[in-house]
Amino acid sequence: MRASPSVVRSQFVTSFDCVSFLTDYGLEDGFVAACHGVAARIAPAARLIDITHLVPPGDVRRGAAVLAQTIPYLPPAVHVAVVDPGVGTARRGIAVQAGQSILVGPDNGLLSWAIAAQGGAQSAVQLTNGDMWLNPVSPTFHGRDIFMPVAAHLAAGADLAQAGTNIGVGEMVVLPAPTSRVHDGEAEGEVMSVDRFGNVQLSIPAADAGRLGISFGSPVVVRCGRRQLTVPYLETFASVAPGEIVAFTDSAGLIALAVSAGDAAQELGLPPGAHVRLSLAHPS
Amino acid sequence: MRASPSVVRSQFVTSFDCVSFLTDYGLEDGFVAACHGVAARIAPAARLIDITHLVPPGDVRRGAAVLAQTIPYLPPAVHVAVVDPGVGTARRGIAVQAGQSILVGPDNGLLSWAIAAQGGAQSAVQLTNGDMWLNPVSPTFHGRDIFMPVAAHLAAGADLAQAGTNIGVGEMVVLPAPTSRVHDGEAEGEVMSVDRFGNVQLSIPAADAGRLGISFGSPVVVRCGRRQLTVPYLETFASVAPGEIVAFTDSAGLIALAVSAGDAAQELGLPPGAHVRLSLAHPS
Amino acid sequence: MRASPSVVRSQFVTSFDCVSFLTDYGLEDGFVAACHGVAARIAPAARLIDITHLVPPGDVRRGAAVLAQTIPYLPPAVHVAVVDPGVGTARRGIAVQAGQSILVGPDNGLLSWAIAAQGGAQSAVQLTNGDMWLNPVSPTFHGRDIFMPVAAHLAAGADLAQAGTNIGVGEMVVLPAPTSRVHDGEAEGEVMSVDRFGNVQLSIPAADAGRLGISFGSPVVVRCGRRQLTVPYLETFASVAPGEIVAFTDSAGLIALAVSAGDAAQELGLPPGAHVRLSLAHPS
Repeated sequence: MRASPSVVRSQFVTSFDCVSFLTDYGLEDGFVAACHGVAARIAPAARLIDITHLVPPGDVRRGAAVLAQTIPYLPPAVHVAVVDPGVGTARRGIAVQAGQSILVGPDNGLLSWAIAAQGGAQSAVQLTNGDMWLNPVSPTFHGRDIFMPVAAHLAAGADLAQAGTNIGVGEMVVLPAPTSRVHDGEAEGEVMSVDRFGNVQLSIPAADAGRLGISFGSPVVVRCGRRQLTVPYLETFASVAPGEIVAFTDSAGLIALAVSAGDAAQELGLPPGAHVRLSLAHPS
Repeated sequence: MRASPSVVRSQFVTSFDCVSFLTDYGLEDGFVAACHGVAARIAPAARLIDITHLVPPGDVRRGAAVLAQTIPYLPPAVHVAVVDPGVGTARRGIAVQAGQSILVGPDNGLLSWAIAAQGGAQSAVQLTNGDMWLNPVSPTFHGRDIFMPVAAHLAAGADLAQAGTNIGVGEMVVLPAPTSRVHDGEAEGEVMSVDRFGNVQLSIPAADAGRLGISFGSPVVVRCGRRQLTVPYLETFASVAPGEIVAFTDSAGLIALAVSAGDAAQELGLPPGAHVRLSLAHPS
Repeated sequence: MRASPSVVRSQFVTSFDCVSFLTDYGLEDGFVAACHGVAARIAPAARLIDITHLVPPGDVRRGAAVLAQTIPYLPPAVHVAVVDPGVGTARRGIAVQAGQSILVGPDNGLLSWAIAAQGGAQSAVQLTNGDMWLNPVSPTFHGRDIFMPVAAHLAAGADLAQAGTNIGVGEMVVLPAPTSRVHDGEAEGEVMSVDRFGNVQLSIPAADAGRLGISFGSPVVVRCGRRQLTVPYLETFASVAPGEIVAFTDSAGLIALAVSAGDAAQELGLPPGAHVRLSLAHPS
């Protein structure tokens, strides 16, 4: 499987110590472990880091967000992501060089935000080289039979070009970016995600809040539909008394809302996708 | 602990890079980690692959099914499985050579389907060598104190024969195989499991469906009690519109029922163990 | 980062093959994986063992109990624990040498029971050396940006003293020990935790039960508020018929209550923190 050195290989890292893995497979079954086993057989020296396997089933946007926010903290790696409601249909499998890493998964937009976060794709292939796959391939488990075997071969030193046919980096499916814009003194965005603590991550970068003159200590008006509340923007949710609402910059650099020692998503009724506007509160 | 080379050792792999681990311990406590720690102390070079720790508490059949369906994709390994409602009673602990792997766990049938899937047991011992165990042994945590230490010693190169007293391969507890038979133009089986996506796995092998003349595109009659519905048999659940029901061959080679972008188990009311019959639909 | 050998270093293990990790981060997001990635970049040779990431959000006592009960079974390691409702406030970050291990986390008592279980702290530092941290530091994610990077540097061979300013081992926050005392023929304690099986772990050590004359086979009176029941004290819950209640010594050496093949916490209405008294039942 290992090709002789080539011009292409010399440009990039040519083998990887690390494979990362994100899916919506859940943890109750042996699905994740089967993929780990496949990786261990093909690339026994690679370390496998599970990002999460609890993406809500089929929720491509959620998978894309977690992937994009996490991989900047991982070593250069082959990142495998599978949230793939179209498994077994005509949607392509792809492998994409971006930054020092390679991303492998379905071409349904799942990888697109992570690719952008890595500075964009340098090259991409459609996965067409069946020699790198398990045989036979189950039409419903490409994670085990295509994506992870290909990733493991790449981690073990195979060239990206061996995995399939070159495709244009502009031909891949890209998820619409989350709404986020600043106008008329307001930053407009949507709820990106709700974490385990009930913290509500908005699609509004901290820099946008800054452009509105919001800084630590500022009172911020949060509008969602007809509802409106004013909360302090602080360094951390732990700065206020239990039960109080606070806006802060979360660990991904986005504005988030929290209830100290409470569950903001529940208390504020803000599920993923909800439309939210922020502005600096002015003295009335 | 390491024995000198012997005739027995020369027949098999004599040390393992990989230990796999399946339990019903859950992930909220430190139980799984304590076992990982024990393995790391005894066999620091072995890679530990978690199959799942979310087998429903005490559900030996479910554990047996996940184990048997997953380990064909793992490297040769010492596979430790503990779903053990009889822990601390007279039930034996066993270690079993099957194919290129060794399976370790309670002798309650948990290992039996995996052993069969590996081509049957070549040899087996009852775990009686306390020198391989932690000391003291908790009567309620043999996973930490007996099974994992024994597995780690085997992974590190100890002989199976050192772990205990030889027992006949026919003397171990075997779980009754899931119901599955073909007669009168029908394949009869039961619901093996329901995965995270709500897909309903039946105990009917794809080959049995084939014997009834069912092929891709065939309409299939599904009977469960007095209920009856006709669904297409297709390559994958993603081939139909969201909300439609489909039969397909799942990644373990068994017939399964899915609702595209939905939860078949819930919509069809088919829990594990439910009796189901399939036949080819004929024009009326 | 690596200092030249010194008197301090010669006393202890100076690098670690293993880093353990306990948090309340949950498994749905990429938080745990980001920390794994940080560790892999700084200390690629270290094995990372996850203890649990399902500590109930902010439940410092629960985290402390799981940590203290688990690490005796792990290899000497840098143990990172983060249950940190005060993240970003004035509470200190600490690293503590105890036994052959180093513990790293917030100074909120989370580490205190584990330190005691390791025989007490030998030395401790407040984490003040920002050269060991990621840059910038998110005020809400010290696990990723401070605790794990420091732990990984320590695992890779940095001296504890490099991580910050020395503090007295008696100056750290200590959680109040769980209630447990013997008087007037009764052992008094509280519910420490409820595991996945519904088993109720009490803060009463088996030795205290022994002091009351309770031995295997003894009938034991369990009192909780006005309720009272008499159950057998046996080696394991599997010794009684399904549905029956039993007291036993659990795998941490504490008295626990179980319902064989059932959920004791639910059936007995005993949540964590509930006050319980035990005594030997005497013939009336």
